[in-house]
Amino acid sequence: MKQLRIGLIGAGYMGKAHTIAYQSVGAIFEMTCRPACEMIATSHHDGAADVARRWGWARSTGDWRELVDDPGVDLVVIASPPRTHLPMVIACVGARKPVFCEKPLGTNAAESLAMTEAVEQARVPNMVGFNYIRTPASQLARQIVASGEIGEVIQVTAEHVEDYLHDPTLPSSWRTRVATGTEAGALGDVASHIINACLRLAGPIESLVADTTIVQTHRDGPHGLEAVENDDQGQMLLRFANGATGSISFSRMAAGRKMGYTYRITGTRGAIFFDQEDQNALWLYDASREPARRGFQKLLMGPAHPDYLAFNQGVGHGTGYNEQIAIEARDFLHAVTTGEAVWPTFRDGYEVDKVIAAALVSNRDRCWVTV
Amino acid sequence: MKQLRIGLIGAGYMGKAHTIAYQSVGAIFEMTCRPACEMIATSHHDGAADVARRWGWARSTGDWRELVDDPGVDLVVIASPPRTHLPMVIACVGARKPVFCEKPLGTNAAESLAMTEAVEQARVPNMVGFNYIRTPASQLARQIVASGEIGEVIQVTAEHVEDYLHDPTLPSSWRTRVATGTEAGALGDVASHIINACLRLAGPIESLVADTTIVQTHRDGPHGLEAVENDDQGQMLLRFANGATGSISFSRMAAGRKMGYTYRITGTRGAIFFDQEDQNALWLYDASREPARRGFQKLLMGPAHPDYLAFNQGVGHGTGYNEQIAIEARDFLHAVTTGEAVWPTFRDGYEVDKVIAAALVSNRDRCWVTV
Amino acid sequence: MKQLRIGLIGAGYMGKAHTIAYQSVGAIFEMTCRPACEMIATSHHDGAADVARRWGWARSTGDWRELVDDPGVDLVVIASPPRTHLPMVIACVGARKPVFCEKPLGTNAAESLAMTEAVEQARVPNMVGFNYIRTPASQLARQIVASGEIGEVIQVTAEHVEDYLHDPTLPSSWRTRVATGTEAGALGDVASHIINACLRLAGPIESLVADTTIVQTHRDGPHGLEAVENDDQGQMLLRFANGATGSISFSRMAAGRKMGYTYRITGTRGAIFFDQEDQNALWLYDASREPARRGFQKLLMGPAHPDYLAFNQGVGHGTGYNEQIAIEARDFLHAVTTGEAVWPTFRDGYEVDKVIAAALVSNRDRCWVTV
Amino acid sequence: MKQLRIGLIGAGYMGKAHTIAYQSVGAIFEMTCRPACEMIATSHHDGAADVARRWGWARSTGDWRELVDDPGVDLVVIASPPRTHLPMVIACVGARKPVFCEKPLGTNAAESLAMTEAVEQARVPNMVGFNYIRTPASQLARQIVASGEIGEVIQVTAEHVEDYLHDPTLPSSWRTRVATGTEAGALGDVASHIINACLRLAGPIESLVADTTIVQTHRDGPHGLEAVENDDQGQMLLRFANGATGSISFSRMAAGRKMGYTYRITGTRGAIFFDQEDQNALWLYDASREPARRGFQKLLMGPAHPDYLAFNQGVGHGTGYNEQIAIEARDFLHAVTTGEAVWPTFRDGYEVDKVIAAALVSNRDRCWVTV
Ligand SMILES: NC(=O)C1=CN([C@@H]2O[C@H](COP(=O)(O)OP(=O)(O)OC[C@H]3O[C@@H](n4cnc5c(N)ncnc54)[C@H](O)[C@@H]3O)[C@@H](O)[C@H]2O)C=CC1
Ligand SMILES: NC(=O)C1=CN([C@@H]2O[C@H](COP(=O)(O)OP(=O)(O)OC[C@H]3O[C@@H](n4cnc5c(N)ncnc54)[C@H](O)[C@@H]3O)[C@@H](O)[C@H]2O)C=CC1
Ligand SMILES: NC(=O)C1=CN([C@@H]2O[C@H](COP(=O)(O)OP(=O)(O)OC[C@H]3O[C@@H](n4cnc5c(N)ncnc54)[C@H](O)[C@@H]3O)[C@@H](O)[C@H]2O)C=CC1
Ligand SMILES: NC(=O)C1=CN([C@@H]2O[C@H](COP(=O)(O)OP(=O)(O)OC[C@H]3O[C@@H](n4cnc5c(N)ncnc54)[C@H](O)[C@@H]3O)[C@@H](O)[C@H]2O)C=CC1
Repeated sequence: MKQLRIGLIGAGYMGKAHTIAYQSVGAIFEMTCRPACEMIATSHHDGAADVARRWGWARSTGDWRELVDDPGVDLVVIASPPRTHLPMVIACVGARKPVFCEKPLGTNAAESLAMTEAVEQARVPNMVGFNYIRTPASQLARQIVASGEIGEVIQVTAEHVEDYLHDPTLPSSWRTRVATGTEAGALGDVASHIINACLRLAGPIESLVADTTIVQTHRDGPHGLEAVENDDQGQMLLRFANGATGSISFSRMAAGRKMGYTYRITGTRGAIFFDQEDQNALWLYDASREPARRGFQKLLMGPAHPDYLAFNQGVGHGTGYNEQIAIEARDFLHAVTTGEAVWPTFRDGYEVDKVIAAALVSNRDRCWVTV
Repeated sequence: MKQLRIGLIGAGYMGKAHTIAYQSVGAIFEMTCRPACEMIATSHHDGAADVARRWGWARSTGDWRELVDDPGVDLVVIASPPRTHLPMVIACVGARKPVFCEKPLGTNAAESLAMTEAVEQARVPNMVGFNYIRTPASQLARQIVASGEIGEVIQVTAEHVEDYLHDPTLPSSWRTRVATGTEAGALGDVASHIINACLRLAGPIESLVADTTIVQTHRDGPHGLEAVENDDQGQMLLRFANGATGSISFSRMAAGRKMGYTYRITGTRGAIFFDQEDQNALWLYDASREPARRGFQKLLMGPAHPDYLAFNQGVGHGTGYNEQIAIEARDFLHAVTTGEAVWPTFRDGYEVDKVIAAALVSNRDRCWVTV
Repeated sequence: MKQLRIGLIGAGYMGKAHTIAYQSVGAIFEMTCRPACEMIATSHHDGAADVARRWGWARSTGDWRELVDDPGVDLVVIASPPRTHLPMVIACVGARKPVFCEKPLGTNAAESLAMTEAVEQARVPNMVGFNYIRTPASQLARQIVASGEIGEVIQVTAEHVEDYLHDPTLPSSWRTRVATGTEAGALGDVASHIINACLRLAGPIESLVADTTIVQTHRDGPHGLEAVENDDQGQMLLRFANGATGSISFSRMAAGRKMGYTYRITGTRGAIFFDQEDQNALWLYDASREPARRGFQKLLMGPAHPDYLAFNQGVGHGTGYNEQIAIEARDFLHAVTTGEAVWPTFRDGYEVDKVIAAALVSNRDRCWVTV
Repeated sequence: MKQLRIGLIGAGYMGKAHTIAYQSVGAIFEMTCRPACEMIATSHHDGAADVARRWGWARSTGDWRELVDDPGVDLVVIASPPRTHLPMVIACVGARKPVFCEKPLGTNAAESLAMTEAVEQARVPNMVGFNYIRTPASQLARQIVASGEIGEVIQVTAEHVEDYLHDPTLPSSWRTRVATGTEAGALGDVASHIINACLRLAGPIESLVADTTIVQTHRDGPHGLEAVENDDQGQMLLRFANGATGSISFSRMAAGRKMGYTYRITGTRGAIFFDQEDQNALWLYDASREPARRGFQKLLMGPAHPDYLAFNQGVGHGTGYNEQIAIEARDFLHAVTTGEAVWPTFRDGYEVDKVIAAALVSNRDRCWVTV
């Protein structure tokens, strides 16, 4: 079994999640390669060394270029802020190393396109980190829609709302600045996930109209009050290529919603509903049943559903956030070993960023925009 | 205690509900008048007589004008299709009789304005039938928002989705025709309720952009296949006068949703959530609690909540659809006996119709529209 | 259509519910008789007069014997405390008047048997007030179990828990005294309902073992601290005649549970689950479906379910507590007009009281008891 | 940082879970040791080698005694069937190696006591595998009860019901035989978990009465139809040392319940409710709030709750089954490195087995039994 030596950039929220995933993925799934946690890079030399020791990475560096260029690193996982993604990806392509990049791919669609074209031209295996759509339940949702079990999709009602910035005393960060983050606030940070889900479940979005607002206009920064530069919340209407219509709400200030990534997909023969706060259940409605036996059915994930059995033999015993990342790791390693593109590739990430770009234009110009 | 003799027009879905309400309202609430079921009118003389006998109305007629003009009728409740509302209301005004009218008030905003001005000029007590907002839970929602308990409203995520026309084999009816129904399909039939709720809970809507579609373009009619003339589903983005933004989804084809009148009102200090399919609960989130004790709280309605105790002394024992109509009846009788305007008056119905009118324009012209 | 003149004894919690029911039942259901609210009796002459005026009863009395003997009263509804039921029933039998009696039928099984034998010998139509089992959802549950849809019943997990006496500062009342109430506290007051449901859904109970406790040993009474004389809470194990086993929890101090009348009936081919706090839904599990599509289905009550359409044409629009009483009224009037026994008769009430009696013995003697 | 070399016995359901846990625990938690997956033993030499290669264990053996005696193994994790636990534990004690043992500890209380005394006399660090009580939510439940936040416990309503043997065509296995499994069927396999929870949350159980049944009396075995030798389902009443009472239902045939480990703990000041099928939420009811604001609150687990932050920084992002095992691994390694006893030790496992033993006696003798 071939060993694959991982290089990870970033040791924050997602850096840790990827670490856990790569350390356990080999035990969880039947693999054709053996992943090894080779090197980790963060912005600081010492911090990297410390985290390597604690998390079990063989080596560390304070300079991500060193990691990308290191002959002992076979593939790269980027889990640093969006602003850093472009140069890192370009370097990986230069080094001909397979690259996984956290979402959003670029800080704007142009960047994403540049990265996409770079990996495609160089035929470098690549993947972007939309993990939520990888839960067993959302994979099942995809199966159900794709197989026509609920008929043709007619309406999509989706949202990704959280409240991690609801508290007005929370300080500014890269997430609230355009220069270090992205022009899209909640739109980029959370809506990107649910846009990805909509594309996956209902197909391409043709046009949209969006409306966003900054609720908390200023937050404490390192040098006193600082303007919040990107949206706290918003919503958009969608027209899909297949004729379905829908809407997305998004927010980082939705008091009480902690992981409000939800979708209801209505079709001509039924419907599905999912709420990530109860990630082990998918609700299915079959309109063909006799009237007295119609009702949403709560399917608890189990061995009969996609990518569940590897984690657990018991229905309803449950997987959590980190297991989405383990599935992602398995898929990326599959892409690396086989050379097959595994969804979502950078191009899929670019498709999301195009929707975000259209939403920004729509919000600015107060009109419908073709994606 | 003064007796008030009711005249009811219409013996369909809502006619029955109003009958039940007026027969029991006196026992349910402490009243200052005694309502009597005096006369019922439907389109057919015989049908009216039959229904009067079965439901307990003293007299009946096949001609609603007879009812309006009858000196033994003190007030009129209109529960016939929207297309009939205008002449009936004008007649009531002519007869100086208090008038309750089912929603939507008119078939368009112009009609609604005409009715509103007529009752206002003649100082005829009047009310429009937005019953859902009268449940104990939605009254509590109003209290909570109005008192500032969840701070200033920042986002409204609402919908009214049902599936009563999801089955493509269901025939056409006044609901699917413009000539006999209204230009607004699900937009008028169901969205009117949730627009009313949004106005009640978050204040005036300044502008909107809407998108509607006819999913099932043809249905069986009395003379063969007939075009469906108004929307089956849609969604809109809202900008409120107070700066909040939001969205509404609406549908009569939302497979699996039976009474999907839901709203989440997010404020700067908390949030509320309501789903009419579980009408005895209001969910409240208080962002000021300590982090480890934050979470939506399921408040089951009980004697401590608005208009519950009259029905039942036990918390969580529950009220249903018909009890909303009883509350409505109590309120209308209050308006009649005291002369005080009781929300929602015709003017409030007109406000809803203005939003619907703006949505129709927005959908046609594909742009944001000021209400 | 024959008129039936009702006499109601009691103007408390249930007296009001029966009043509302008899005033609206004629409009709700297709009836073969016309019920009239003729006379109401309470313990006080003046109170009776006042309540008659407010609730719409034609006449009133402070002496229930007057009501029973009045030739203008065709049938009697008893909604006074359990301690008063026996003499009232015996008087009704003497007057050969159909009699409906609130639960629990007697204050003990001997009383219930006496009443049962009295009505049966005199062939007086009779019914006992177990209203919860009359919701559309619980009627559907009965259909599902009786038809074999979930196979043979193997386990019953049930409870009736409320918290109306959780607060230790609440005073004593007839409910907490043996002399004026019953020896069974929560066991009689709430468990009687769920025992009735178990009998209805899973058949006769052969033996049981019960354990009850008084949690709050003293409460404020009219003359100072007073001992609580009957159980606040308890639980029992059940063996059914058909081989199924099960358990019941009951309480009047179950903090947070307001209408915790729940049952899960597990069968060899599936299961059902019901919670009265969400009374418009029945959950159904069909074990024969393919593994990936197995899960509890939430059936929202609608016109396709028992006794729903009369209230409302829309699925999921919902019925509440008072509508159970209206169904009960319809059924009792049916028993009166046709002479057919309608479940639950006094004998069925006696069956419940036998289970309660066995539970009291079991608790005292700390052993299994044959019912 | 000291390395600790793990030896794992068993490569089934739990063997895999422990493998995942030990491979990722170092990245998840701040550790004072570095766990290494050294050796795995199963019943077959080849199977062990295969699994070692696939899961990432350095060495393997078909003879567990080899593993226990190997000087390169610092501690032992037993994840083989109950029937094998006693000799393995005794061998570990002989080798003075810390030992973790899956539940149930012994096949009966005598065995458990023997194991407990052995580890205690030899002062060998030890722990038993009741993982469910280690979720952040159940740890929070413990905090809430222990701190008195819901007052004194008065009633416990608990169950552990699954349906893994509901299908009558499923074959017999060690789980259905006494000789290779335990005398207690569902009682040992699932009820053991919830008994452990009851002891943890409400304290020692003084006495009980239990009733169990074999529903499916025969199942296909390797040599044709074979008798099922232990209980499929049952229920018991409990009396706790502190005066609280309660009940437990348990089943391996509870159609539709997949992970029905639930408890409601009612106290004098509030209540908590938990359902393992929604393991990231704990429901809390605070009876001291004003009546109009009382209701169960759904607390989604997050960084403010026990053992959550190490997995994830986002509230409600969720943990799953395997993460319970990672917490367990962290705790056992803590016990090993510090020598401190970490709950639940073998003695705690023995306490559970005593309750099971009492339940078996109670079921046989049809009477209350002192634990
Ligand atoms: N898929 C998901 O569910 C989530 C994805 N993300 C995405 O993951 C990425 C990282 O976000 P977080 O982990 O939340 O950020 P974070 O702020 O927690 O951590 C960022 C890490 O990147 C490192 N870093 C920053 N600049 C660097 C540089 N020039 N060289 C090397 N290391 C550098 C920092 O030292 C830090 O360790 C973002 O793209 C974000 O959008 C974040 C959270 C959830
Ligand atoms: N508030 C609510 O929840 C609901 C409100 N509605 C509203 O109630 C009104 C009636 O709707 P439904 O009861 O569903 O209609 P329906 O079709 O069930 O019944 C209409 C009734 O009006 C009578 N009618 C029609 N034209 C008449 C005329 N010229 N003179 C006398 N009677 C006439 C018919 O005979 C029939 O009895 C509509 O405005 C509708 O939008 C309807 C359903 C629910
Ligand atoms: N089916 C259900 O859901 C419920 C049933 N009940 C049952 O209904 C019955 C009454 O209970 P509540 O209404 O809660 O009691 P309550 O205390 O609210 O009212 C009792 C009424 O009976 C009257 N009364 C008492 N003694 C009388 C006498 N000697 N003559 C005439 N009237 C007399 C009182 O004046 C009072 O109006 C009880 O059997 C109780 O168990 C009570 C609540 C719910
Ligand atoms: N804590 C929990 O949630 C759960 C605990 N368990 C417990 O875990 C233990 C194992 O159960 P499962 O993993 O379900 O069993 P399993 O049948 O899936 O696997 C048992 C493993 O033990 C091995 N084994 C059997 N005899 C052996 C021997 N003499 N020497 C070496 N290896 C031997 C087998 O080869 C097999 O790999 C039991 O005590 C069970 O009660 C099981 C499932 C869940």
